[in-house]
Amino acid sequence: MNHTRGELFDPLFGAGPNPGDSGVAAAVSDRAWVVALLEVEAALSRAASAAGLVAAEHATTVTAVASRLAEPGGLDIADLGRRSAAGGNPVIPLVKILRTTCAADGVPTSAVHVGATSQDVMDSALMLLSRRAGHHLLADLRAAANSAAELARLHRTTPMVARTLGQQALPTTFGALAVCWFTGLDDATAGLEHALSALPVQFGGAAGTLAAVHPHGLAIADTLADELGLARQVVPWHTTRTPVAALAAALGVVAGALSKPATDIVAMASTEFGELAEGAPGGSSAMPHKQNPVAAITARAAARRVPGLVSTILSSMDHEFARAAGAWHAEWETITDLLRLTGGAAHRLASSLGGLHVHTDTMARNLDLTGGLILAERVTGALAAHTDTARDIVSAAAASGHPLEQDPEITAHLTEGELHDLLNPSHYLGHAVDLVDRALAVRSTQTDRTLGGLE
Amino acid sequence: MNHTRGELFDPLFGAGPNPGDSGVAAAVSDRAWVVALLEVEAALSRAASAAGLVAAEHATTVTAVASRLAEPGGLDIADLGRRSAAGGNPVIPLVKILRTTCAADGVPTSAVHVGATSQDVMDSALMLLSRRAGHHLLADLRAAANSAAELARLHRTTPMVARTLGQQALPTTFGALAVCWFTGLDDATAGLEHALSALPVQFGGAAGTLAAVHPHGLAIADTLADELGLARQVVPWHTTRTPVAALAAALGVVAGALSKPATDIVAMASTEFGELAEGAPGGSSAMPHKQNPVAAITARAAARRVPGLVSTILSSMDHEFARAAGAWHAEWETITDLLRLTGGAAHRLASSLGGLHVHTDTMARNLDLTGGLILAERVTGALAAHTDTARDIVSAAAASGHPLEQDPEITAHLTEGELHDLLNPSHYLGHAVDLVDRALAVRSTQTDRTLGGLE
Amino acid sequence: MNHTRGELFDPLFGAGPNPGDSGVAAAVSDRAWVVALLEVEAALSRAASAAGLVAAEHATTVTAVASRLAEPGGLDIADLGRRSAAGGNPVIPLVKILRTTCAADGVPTSAVHVGATSQDVMDSALMLLSRRAGHHLLADLRAAANSAAELARLHRTTPMVARTLGQQALPTTFGALAVCWFTGLDDATAGLEHALSALPVQFGGAAGTLAAVHPHGLAIADTLADELGLARQVVPWHTTRTPVAALAAALGVVAGALSKPATDIVAMASTEFGELAEGAPGGSSAMPHKQNPVAAITARAAARRVPGLVSTILSSMDHEFARAAGAWHAEWETITDLLRLTGGAAHRLASSLGGLHVHTDTMARNLDLTGGLILAERVTGALAAHTDTARDIVSAAAASGHPLEQDPEITAHLTEGELHDLLNPSHYLGHAVDLVDRALAVRSTQTDRTLGGLE
Amino acid sequence: MNHTRGELFDPLFGAGPNPGDSGVAAAVSDRAWVVALLEVEAALSRAASAAGLVAAEHATTVTAVASRLAEPGGLDIADLGRRSAAGGNPVIPLVKILRTTCAADGVPTSAVHVGATSQDVMDSALMLLSRRAGHHLLADLRAAANSAAELARLHRTTPMVARTLGQQALPTTFGALAVCWFTGLDDATAGLEHALSALPVQFGGAAGTLAAVHPHGLAIADTLADELGLARQVVPWHTTRTPVAALAAALGVVAGALSKPATDIVAMASTEFGELAEGAPGGSSAMPHKQNPVAAITARAAARRVPGLVSTILSSMDHEFARAAGAWHAEWETITDLLRLTGGAAHRLASSLGGLHVHTDTMARNLDLTGGLILAERVTGALAAHTDTARDIVSAAAASGHPLEQDPEITAHLTEGELHDLLNPSHYLGHAVDLVDRALAVRSTQTDRTLGGLE
Repeated sequence: MNHTRGELFDPLFGAGPNPGDSGVAAAVSDRAWVVALLEVEAALSRAASAAGLVAAEHATTVTAVASRLAEPGGLDIADLGRRSAAGGNPVIPLVKILRTTCAADGVPTSAVHVGATSQDVMDSALMLLSRRAGHHLLADLRAAANSAAELARLHRTTPMVARTLGQQALPTTFGALAVCWFTGLDDATAGLEHALSALPVQFGGAAGTLAAVHPHGLAIADTLADELGLARQVVPWHTTRTPVAALAAALGVVAGALSKPATDIVAMASTEFGELAEGAPGGSSAMPHKQNPVAAITARAAARRVPGLVSTILSSMDHEFARAAGAWHAEWETITDLLRLTGGAAHRLASSLGGLHVHTDTMARNLDLTGGLILAERVTGALAAHTDTARDIVSAAAASGHPLEQDPEITAHLTEGELHDLLNPSHYLGHAVDLVDRALAVRSTQTDRTLGGLE
Repeated sequence: MNHTRGELFDPLFGAGPNPGDSGVAAAVSDRAWVVALLEVEAALSRAASAAGLVAAEHATTVTAVASRLAEPGGLDIADLGRRSAAGGNPVIPLVKILRTTCAADGVPTSAVHVGATSQDVMDSALMLLSRRAGHHLLADLRAAANSAAELARLHRTTPMVARTLGQQALPTTFGALAVCWFTGLDDATAGLEHALSALPVQFGGAAGTLAAVHPHGLAIADTLADELGLARQVVPWHTTRTPVAALAAALGVVAGALSKPATDIVAMASTEFGELAEGAPGGSSAMPHKQNPVAAITARAAARRVPGLVSTILSSMDHEFARAAGAWHAEWETITDLLRLTGGAAHRLASSLGGLHVHTDTMARNLDLTGGLILAERVTGALAAHTDTARDIVSAAAASGHPLEQDPEITAHLTEGELHDLLNPSHYLGHAVDLVDRALAVRSTQTDRTLGGLE
Repeated sequence: MNHTRGELFDPLFGAGPNPGDSGVAAAVSDRAWVVALLEVEAALSRAASAAGLVAAEHATTVTAVASRLAEPGGLDIADLGRRSAAGGNPVIPLVKILRTTCAADGVPTSAVHVGATSQDVMDSALMLLSRRAGHHLLADLRAAANSAAELARLHRTTPMVARTLGQQALPTTFGALAVCWFTGLDDATAGLEHALSALPVQFGGAAGTLAAVHPHGLAIADTLADELGLARQVVPWHTTRTPVAALAAALGVVAGALSKPATDIVAMASTEFGELAEGAPGGSSAMPHKQNPVAAITARAAARRVPGLVSTILSSMDHEFARAAGAWHAEWETITDLLRLTGGAAHRLASSLGGLHVHTDTMARNLDLTGGLILAERVTGALAAHTDTARDIVSAAAASGHPLEQDPEITAHLTEGELHDLLNPSHYLGHAVDLVDRALAVRSTQTDRTLGGLE
Repeated sequence: MNHTRGELFDPLFGAGPNPGDSGVAAAVSDRAWVVALLEVEAALSRAASAAGLVAAEHATTVTAVASRLAEPGGLDIADLGRRSAAGGNPVIPLVKILRTTCAADGVPTSAVHVGATSQDVMDSALMLLSRRAGHHLLADLRAAANSAAELARLHRTTPMVARTLGQQALPTTFGALAVCWFTGLDDATAGLEHALSALPVQFGGAAGTLAAVHPHGLAIADTLADELGLARQVVPWHTTRTPVAALAAALGVVAGALSKPATDIVAMASTEFGELAEGAPGGSSAMPHKQNPVAAITARAAARRVPGLVSTILSSMDHEFARAAGAWHAEWETITDLLRLTGGAAHRLASSLGGLHVHTDTMARNLDLTGGLILAERVTGALAAHTDTARDIVSAAAASGHPLEQDPEITAHLTEGELHDLLNPSHYLGHAVDLVDRALAVRSTQTDRTLGGLE
């Protein structure tokens, strides 16, 4: 027990077992693995029974025993872990335990793990685990996207300055920035839903030919998929790792989509920007003024750890022959961590966005920081109707550091009223509001379409 | 000219300019970039003309001038590169060149780069470039998958040994192994097609609001997409990088799918395995017996370099505000390299698979290496009808090192004829042939469905 | 407790809590973190006491209380984890617990966490943890390298075939291959020792200026380092992450060095090669002939997961200002995993190498597989003394598939005795034996030099 | 020529061929590769001549011919590249060209490529190339560190606010921040110098035994190292890739060290912070007020691309047997890119730091943004001498939003003069100035020590 991990850092990175949070960490814990492995074994006995290879009552007993072992305390996980080392995976000792326990209830050895190899059970369990953790993740992703969409709706016309390459550029609205947030999240979520819904069962037997259960192999594989709620396999994919890789890749895109709003929030919550604050910021006993946007910060931290894990999965697709000697084993904890960290980032970002305080007054104040220079492009355009040297005049004025509305070469052509209008940021928002409306409209269509979907 | 790259190593990694090869390297070269940038500028002038902001004849002239500059020698690329450093991207000097050249033909400055920012042109050009390079890539992927499918068809019943964790396990067919190859390739190809077909145009103006062309911004964006043959944008995605990330992720899955057959080929071509040989292996002047499977080797080498690049793209999705100060610039050459290396790996693997020599005799000989032990599972099953200690008997026989058919405890129960049949690898292929047929049937359906698709 | 990780997979990847194993997993567990954090706080109170800021008896009490809390059951780690989420790190609630507990013994708040910020304690604890886990790792690395060196010594003259690009090339000795193994391990170990010995204490206060303990800051920092057995800091490195990055990089090189022998062992243990077998291979109940080299396989699996984690650390070196909002938090579990997985790989490889069975007879048999072709280079050299067409003659003979010693064009010039000698692999080992001797001699010197070193 | 890369983007990422820049791109170009390969071949002929295996005049001729071929136009690189594809590396066709050209001058075939295999030449050339590119890199790293050190010296007492987690925390000096910059750069530079100085020659012959030149192999290897100015090998490292990995790892740490100051500069140059500006910022024709810190931006972009490449090298250390079928080939362009991008980032950051404008007035203004709250810690300390509720009073005052110096509960205890002093940021700099002095003093010692070093 001494050497376990998870209690200390999981809550911080957003996926701990607190009431109300996503529970993605619990969904990928050691226990979740054991539960999934046992469910696969039980479903396999039932599928073999449907094919006539196992007596119905034996399949029922296997299912009952597996359920019992899957309960808290039903199995000594640390002992199972230690016994896994010899053979290279936990299925070997788990099958022994399951067979022994079932034997006490009169079930023959042949009714457990029928025609299967360890990889069948590990792979199918990983798919089951991923699907479940994926549901937690999707819920948090949708919560985050919904909050961002609501911010976009509320602030579709709230003026703020758009920054490019760190410099104030032009006026926009906070709603238009929030559009960038939720469209990225929605896009990435759609990709993840697609990957999750395609997760297939694995059933190939010792070497991918299903020889031990011939001629029932294909039928058992399909029943097993149906029992577990997984997609059916076309053929065994024991060394064709596209399902695993596509899942990892989708999680990588999700993590990146989470990092964009988290990065903006951290910057906008800085003392100098002052445009946003989290609802429950982290404080400091020594520095009472500190309002650290901890949820966004830890969302970023979790998201930063995902790309390296994706590369691990992609570089482990070179499974040789009919079972890889290492590339396969490298997937287990890596997928676990990908789900946990992406899920944690989603959970933390959802918290951040859900409680965000928007300081529209500071946004307005920041719009004035350059004394109108962010509207230089617009003034140039208006001035061009009067003189051929509009660009030069405005550039010189900008370089001088004086307000554009007091520059004599500009006031020579444009009236105070005209300049007042030209320099009003709210009058140069372009399509910002249109884009908010368009994105929200598209979103509403898509959300309708996915009702009745994966979850 | 002195410092260029590409001539030395591109041909080796499969994407050089030789007649007949994929040309993916040419599709992502400096020149391909310049051509794409100019095409975007020309299309933008035409789209602005359609919106009434540019005179039709000016748009026509811009298009003609852009075409001329895009020709070999039309532009000094090295000079353009040097002039890019100051502003941080090549669009700034390119627009100057285009405007100056067009001005000689009476086109006003305002008819070029209408309402656009550099990022609009860079992003749209990157999408154009990716789509073109992607077509080369898809062609090679299909060639590779077709060759693997043909091998599966030809060798659906060719017995070979299945290896798990490096050890001989059970009989299978070479066709069943080739199924693993083409199903992975087909899966990954479908993912790439999806990503390529979704690549959108980018048009947001200086800060994503399209203020400079209001109220024509959304219309221009859609026309621009249509002119370039790209997908329309819902909203500008200047800092919502899911399209770029989804492309990178799809390429990562493709590279992994290529690494699986390449890895198998290298192992099976080793002297000790001797089951495969490339049609055009690399030799050695000093060692006349060497038959290096160079195409598979270099395919693996190219594929190995992809996962790290994918992680670069994923970890650069944190684009702040309305234009990222670094994360955006990091994409350009990285996507270029992803396309080049994945395309190169596809090209080389297609060569390898297309010319593969299959040594069915060696496959048969290797099936006998263990003296029947790979059929121990089957003999145990048959023996179990006669004795309760079947497993112990076979295990002891296996450990003794003597052939199973000469073990007295086995021959006490099974006749020579029965043992002859039980120890015939071709009689224990399970569903190997069924799986080949199933996978080929599914493939034929899917290929039909994608006719008329992207290419 | 439900959501913990580590019990199931740690033993498999080599770092579990079994008697006799490396214990690296325990050294990076949640509890190890808590222990290290408490030790840093206690040492800080003592260091502040040495500077006259804390009463000696208070420092003694803090140390005693911290020791008590560090004992199993002394602290509810899950509760600490949950309370960490609000502020973004576990030091904030831990200091509260420590202060409250000490207060009961009359220690004022000001005697705990003197002048420190959370990052000081987290960073110093991470260094402490790394140093301890590093010692476990070094022990396993040395065990692995020693075993490989012993194999080199034992088999300095044992002939085997050298393979290049998967093809048999020339004779060598198994000792010469083992030299590649231990020289890589020794090189990487030296790099890790260097990184571990440089791990510095961190003490900068709230913003890196040590203002709260001025003018005692530099003195306290040095005493703190000495108390903890860490290197002294030149200046605080709160956002200068070279120490963390150098550690991660060294671990990455170690993992790569471990992957080379593990890869060779897996290949040489394959049925077709048959040159090596592990002492305790993993079996299969269904396939009694299987001898899976599980230790090498899981060493490879663990090592494969390291490079992605290294890239996470390297890409998180962009710590902004005086404390990074995310990049810092991303380090904690990543370094933990780097130590755990590299340590696990070392432990598993040490087991594999320590029990390796070397089948010299199969090595000899494999040397004959090409019927002398691997000596074609040598025969060509000898023939060249007699004829100008030596290369053509040997190439033709090689292509014919007949044994070189029966080729009439060869026997026309070389006697049976000469050919017998020329085709004896043991007579064409070049410097193989010299290289073994040289590498062992250098090793013995270096090992002497590092006695009295880090451990 | 059509498909080359480098001219368009190299200047942008800092390593182009302009007068005065680092030239690291030229040092890793196709031509640089060809030059290095030819130099290795020439040095090998001379080393073989020293061992008596080649006539002295032949070695002289080989050297002269290699020099001629290495000149611009001496060799058709595109043709060489195309001819490389068949055998898997460019050495095979290059040796043919060299032998043919030398033969015209009466040099026998046996005098060229004596006892070598392609990998000997590729590996040694890569080391040569790395060492040369490394020198460019070190020069730029030192320039960057020197500029940062000079900023630290100039601004050792310039007050600015320290930010933690994005929030203003406490006063510090700009010099103390610059210390973080140069200490990271110096640390990473030392690591790179170490790796560069250890780069060894490679000479192992066809299979690592040097059989073809026995008993002269070890002597030739050492002479070859000396001729090329590389470190001597202990034994051939054809499949022991620690030298390559250590180089990549050191470059990764360097890139991370570069990203820290680049990130700070970009943030501090933002409109809202306004504390720094680059000397040659990038402008915008449409937005005359824009002052984009392009050098820091592109330095960040280049540095972001490095960690993924490091992971590629680390995950390609599993070289099997005596020559890896893919892992070896994956190194060539990856190391090239690592040198190019790290070198480019160093060059761009050196430019940025060398021309940095420091707006000390804005730094001072930002210090006042919180109305004294960043000194709350200090006021609390002073107030604690008068009341037990100091912390509560200050926290309440901070929460109220009123200036601390006007809070009646505070002014009840502290005089206006005391508060004036307590709230002066320059009076609460802690050890900031000491740390600058200490770091500069240590730096001066270390710089002295490395004189006469690698460069």
